[in-house]
Amino acid sequence: MKTRSIVFVIMCCLIQLVRAENGYELWLRYQPIEDASLLDSYRQKHIALFVPVSSDTLKAAKKELQLGLRGLLNYSSQEIASWNELKEGTLIAGTPRSLPGLKDTDVYRKLDRLTEEGYLIASSHIEKKAVTIIAARTDIGVLYGVFRYLQLMQTHQSLAHLDIADSPKLKYRMLNHWDNLNGTVERGYAGYSLWNWERLPRYKDPRYTDYARANASIGINGIVLNNVNAEAKSLRTDWLVKASGLADVFRPYGIKIYLTAKFSAPKEIGGLDTANPKDERVRQWWKDKVKEIYGLIPDFGGFLVKANSEGQPGPQDYGCSHAEGANLLGEALEPYGGIVFWRAFVYQNERHVDRVVTGYNEFKPLDGQFGKNVFVQPKNGPIDFQPREPFHPLFGSMPDTPLAMEFQITQENLGHAGHLVYLGTLFEETLQSDTYANGKGTTVSKVLQNYQHTHGMSALAGVPNVGTDLNWTGHLFGQANWYAFGRLSWNPDMHATDIAAEWVKMTFSTKQEVLEPILRIMSMSREAYVNYTMPLGLNHIMNYDTHNGPEPWHNDPVWTAFDYHKVTKDSIGVDRTMQGSGATRQYHSPVFDKFDDLNTCPESYLLWFHRLPWDYKLKSGKTLWNGLVDHYYKGVEEVRQMQRLWDTLKGKIDNERFRHVATLLKYQEQEAIWWRDGCLLFFQQYSGRPIPSQYEQPAHSLKYYQSIPFPYDWNGVYEH
Amino acid sequence: MKTRSIVFVIMCCLIQLVRAENGYELWLRYQPIEDASLLDSYRQKHIALFVPVSSDTLKAAKKELQLGLRGLLNYSSQEIASWNELKEGTLIAGTPRSLPGLKDTDVYRKLDRLTEEGYLIASSHIEKKAVTIIAARTDIGVLYGVFRYLQLMQTHQSLAHLDIADSPKLKYRMLNHWDNLNGTVERGYAGYSLWNWERLPRYKDPRYTDYARANASIGINGIVLNNVNAEAKSLRTDWLVKASGLADVFRPYGIKIYLTAKFSAPKEIGGLDTANPKDERVRQWWKDKVKEIYGLIPDFGGFLVKANSEGQPGPQDYGCSHAEGANLLGEALEPYGGIVFWRAFVYQNERHVDRVVTGYNEFKPLDGQFGKNVFVQPKNGPIDFQPREPFHPLFGSMPDTPLAMEFQITQENLGHAGHLVYLGTLFEETLQSDTYANGKGTTVSKVLQNYQHTHGMSALAGVPNVGTDLNWTGHLFGQANWYAFGRLSWNPDMHATDIAAEWVKMTFSTKQEVLEPILRIMSMSREAYVNYTMPLGLNHIMNYDTHNGPEPWHNDPVWTAFDYHKVTKDSIGVDRTMQGSGATRQYHSPVFDKFDDLNTCPESYLLWFHRLPWDYKLKSGKTLWNGLVDHYYKGVEEVRQMQRLWDTLKGKIDNERFRHVATLLKYQEQEAIWWRDGCLLFFQQYSGRPIPSQYEQPAHSLKYYQSIPFPYDWNGVYEH
Repeated sequence: MKTRSIVFVIMCCLIQLVRAENGYELWLRYQPIEDASLLDSYRQKHIALFVPVSSDTLKAAKKELQLGLRGLLNYSSQEIASWNELKEGTLIAGTPRSLPGLKDTDVYRKLDRLTEEGYLIASSHIEKKAVTIIAARTDIGVLYGVFRYLQLMQTHQSLAHLDIADSPKLKYRMLNHWDNLNGTVERGYAGYSLWNWERLPRYKDPRYTDYARANASIGINGIVLNNVNAEAKSLRTDWLVKASGLADVFRPYGIKIYLTAKFSAPKEIGGLDTANPKDERVRQWWKDKVKEIYGLIPDFGGFLVKANSEGQPGPQDYGCSHAEGANLLGEALEPYGGIVFWRAFVYQNERHVDRVVTGYNEFKPLDGQFGKNVFVQPKNGPIDFQPREPFHPLFGSMPDTPLAMEFQITQENLGHAGHLVYLGTLFEETLQSDTYANGKGTTVSKVLQNYQHTHGMSALAGVPNVGTDLNWTGHLFGQANWYAFGRLSWNPDMHATDIAAEWVKMTFSTKQEVLEPILRIMSMSREAYVNYTMPLGLNHIMNYDTHNGPEPWHNDPVWTAFDYHKVTKDSIGVDRTMQGSGATRQYHSPVFDKFDDLNTCPESYLLWFHRLPWDYKLKSGKTLWNGLVDHYYKGVEEVRQMQRLWDTLKGKIDNERFRHVATLLKYQEQEAIWWRDGCLLFFQQYSGRPIPSQYEQPAHSLKYYQSIPFPYDWNGVYEH
Repeated sequence: MKTRSIVFVIMCCLIQLVRAENGYELWLRYQPIEDASLLDSYRQKHIALFVPVSSDTLKAAKKELQLGLRGLLNYSSQEIASWNELKEGTLIAGTPRSLPGLKDTDVYRKLDRLTEEGYLIASSHIEKKAVTIIAARTDIGVLYGVFRYLQLMQTHQSLAHLDIADSPKLKYRMLNHWDNLNGTVERGYAGYSLWNWERLPRYKDPRYTDYARANASIGINGIVLNNVNAEAKSLRTDWLVKASGLADVFRPYGIKIYLTAKFSAPKEIGGLDTANPKDERVRQWWKDKVKEIYGLIPDFGGFLVKANSEGQPGPQDYGCSHAEGANLLGEALEPYGGIVFWRAFVYQNERHVDRVVTGYNEFKPLDGQFGKNVFVQPKNGPIDFQPREPFHPLFGSMPDTPLAMEFQITQENLGHAGHLVYLGTLFEETLQSDTYANGKGTTVSKVLQNYQHTHGMSALAGVPNVGTDLNWTGHLFGQANWYAFGRLSWNPDMHATDIAAEWVKMTFSTKQEVLEPILRIMSMSREAYVNYTMPLGLNHIMNYDTHNGPEPWHNDPVWTAFDYHKVTKDSIGVDRTMQGSGATRQYHSPVFDKFDDLNTCPESYLLWFHRLPWDYKLKSGKTLWNGLVDHYYKGVEEVRQMQRLWDTLKGKIDNERFRHVATLLKYQEQEAIWWRDGCLLFFQQYSGRPIPSQYEQPAHSLKYYQSIPFPYDWNGVYEH
């Protein structure tokens, strides 16, 4: 056995060389276990496999299990078909329905601990034979359990004395694709849309299945196929037929499809002269359309809607409220169990209003007016997916409305796919923010878990960063952000570092010499990005078009960066306290007090909430100007530190992935310097203060930095 | 050794299961040799490796060799660094420069048999030790030799007594990408552009290297990066810098990059008020621009131009000829050795002119007026990449002009990436057509090989079918068309069936049970396509927008299919004889006579050259109508036969690739029926004759077939 293992390991290495590491396999690599004793202990748990399959979902679970075991253990277990054949070292998986004998085991009563989608993984004895059981109340629970079980081996955990019971804490775990029907992806930086509309529904690209596998492995159960800046034709019959092809692929993996609904669809494709929610013909059109959809896609999830924002049509066009608009669709979907996600990201480029306060002002008064199957979906913060924002004040402020939260996984404002920025820490920061809505401990995560309600509406949505690139996400570390989002949608109270460790072990290696430097890079990366782009609460000073690179100097009637930094010779920052726009008032005390009071406001939000003179003394004792300089320089230094840490991995991981990340880190360093020098030279025009001489001085003039062409961005539409 | 081999084979199979067969590796799969004695004989030829590397091209050659040997033989050869270490079974590769000792071998004098890019592969003895030598006059010759050498093993040929000398017969072996700068690909059906312009030049996707490897393996040495429907900005400095990043990747693989040049660029990006070739400022602008390009890309290849065609600007806008326009660019490129490819595909949608005659009429009078570094580039036939066309009459008619030929590899008019159509036979048909320009045997291939000229200008260009799809070409069999084009650009006299056999062996298997049915499918596939879409010389009756699916009924002022079939109650076909448009006169005798005379015109071109009554008697004795019906039905039956042949491969090849092709063949059958029934029901309105009762009758009405929505096509621009 031993010689064989060694030969095997050699072979694997050789074959790796022939098939380059391009990242396609994501975290589902199932690479051979090299540690011989660990391998042996794992093999002993898989002498036989007992997984009766009575549904497509169970088939998918069994297939994944076989794939994983072959890859990890290079071992094909004997398959058995009945309890009589049970032997020591059998792995059993199923539900009380697929495995009636389960009712006679000690595991059966534990199923009560699970929700519908949860699973158990338990070591057990049946007739004195040691077995392992993956059990769930539903088929999809079994699939989730299988992925978790394989993860235990991928991360080299012991399979002895297992007793895991896990259920998702949120019911709707959504990816909102911003894919246009022409195949481009708005704010996508990893190629083009995965959906090949020309060939659908007749040809189903095998990549769709891999996408479903990856998503199921992290618990995603809903995918919105198309962009919130919607085209009405996505609801036309021929397009619905195409969408049904994707639904067919995703169904076994527990994933429902959703579509965005353009509010003007009854006019655009329905032949009506209005989309007025109060018009009976409009109501009937939506009912008929929904009926048609469910005829084609019996488990259709529902609609996501962006209305009356950035020029999109909506109910306000007819003097109706957002609630009336959302309920129009909700009522049509209700008979079929469908759901509406109604975005709270609404603004119309009105310069006299502080954009930070609009979402709250518009939606808070509507609390309680939305139908039972309608989510209001704010973004994580009140502006627009900035590198750091305080949590959106609607969380904790609409107790009688189910709230979904929208995170952005694609790095629109975080360096696109060119920068290594682990977003797990950003997600955790928002989710663990305490709203105090119901006293201390009412974190955003708790609000999302919907502690106020009983009808089980809870959701987290993410705008994915995937595309046709071979590695799915453009930057290999973009995979970590997709992974982290999925894990948090399953359990929003997980720690970002724990998630990162899982991902690194599955993606690279469990070895400390690999794990440790990568985890350090990931944990520092988001703060580095904030430091070299928009520290101390600065925001929205990125390039107008691409949202990458600095443009604090942008100044035109449609969008001026000056509204966001308000820099003058005296001061910088926006007064959003009670003396200013009053955005602080949208938070419950003591959050309100903390943000409103300059003495307690965290410096990370300083210029978000306060307008301060250049000589304002920071906690460090330094002036605001010098502190700002420190942050920008620190950011660049942190990228360099990330490069040094990465360089230690040379020879410890495969060359392809090493070089990919090393090249991109170099690229990131250049852009970090561009940000730092561009911003500081711009602000310096106002502050009139020097960059302290201990720092490397900008190599070029402000004019030079202003003339750098922004990297080409392939999508025509830039709002969001 | 034997046991080890068996274990190895098992391992490989298992690992295959973990990493699905998605086609990414193309024909460079380097799969382990399973036959133990063959493996053993191959290993004995690689006891040691002697490949000194003194250039990036030799490094690429050595790397490929190592990759191939590891994959095929699972064996790492000992590397040696000098002639002294030479041992029995050494593989040697290099040029007289990289391997000075080569001059003392019997191989050296054979180098004279090669052109600059050629190679030798020879078994030899050096100091009584049996060795194998891959030798060439240049580094790129070595790389080509390495690919050929690996191919010998991939196709399981003997390595004993080798004596191969091979040089390309054409100097410029080009792929003309129709990639738009926004990432879409005009008439591309395999995803989007491979070029990630946002990240270039800083990040060079490893896929670019794989693309270069694949192209070098088939001899491609020039790539036009962007669409002939050009954007002037591709010549702007920032875009040139991006292009230089691709040039850097391709350079070691012997591939030069070219750009399309928009004739109006001096106006659009040059700040001039004219693009008149006679204006000195315009001449100077092009000279300056070319100088700038060579500063960034020292081995830049040159320009490809589509001018005064389908609305593109050109010299005729200023009363100048195509020659004057082409020479303007030629003169600017001349000092640097750059080349112009000037397309002869010119037409302006003038309905009173037979489109078939325009290219010849426009260009033939210009013969001899083009500069020495200018190619005139007609398409293979006189219309526009139809499933079957007679060769373009310019071949053989411009003895004093270097002619390049443009084939289309992407299946714009051959079912997109949805249909299995092997184009090798189409290419061969055109290349082996006898023009009789200089007596019998003056084939198009000979014309391309430029027998008239001494200055060595010879070229073949293909519009590739590649994109971001995992398998590169959408349909796995699209890879064969790319492969075949490359092989024919190296040697235009190769046989399509030989090329197909190479490809199948490298891509699937050398086993007869696999090889034989696939070769049968490939060899019948193009005629099947012609039969079920446009038999008997019919052409250009496809859908107006997508160029897929039947639309003989299309009829509007811009484009009417009626110009191409001219169907009436009495007759069908276009009279292009001397009694008609006189297109036959553009061919030399006896080709002219053969086409002009109804009795000798091949039936495959019947309705291309002749207009005939429905009761015209075909050679079979059947009426024209019944013969037409036969062809359409035969085409569908041939697709069904292809399906049956493919089904025999179940279990003999991997499941992924089996299913991929099986699904697409089903799709192809549906579309073949759509074509057949749509066309026959349409023509039947005029012929008034029945579809003979032995045939399955159309399942639907003409109206139904006319209402089928054309499959979604993602690119906005449809001219070409």
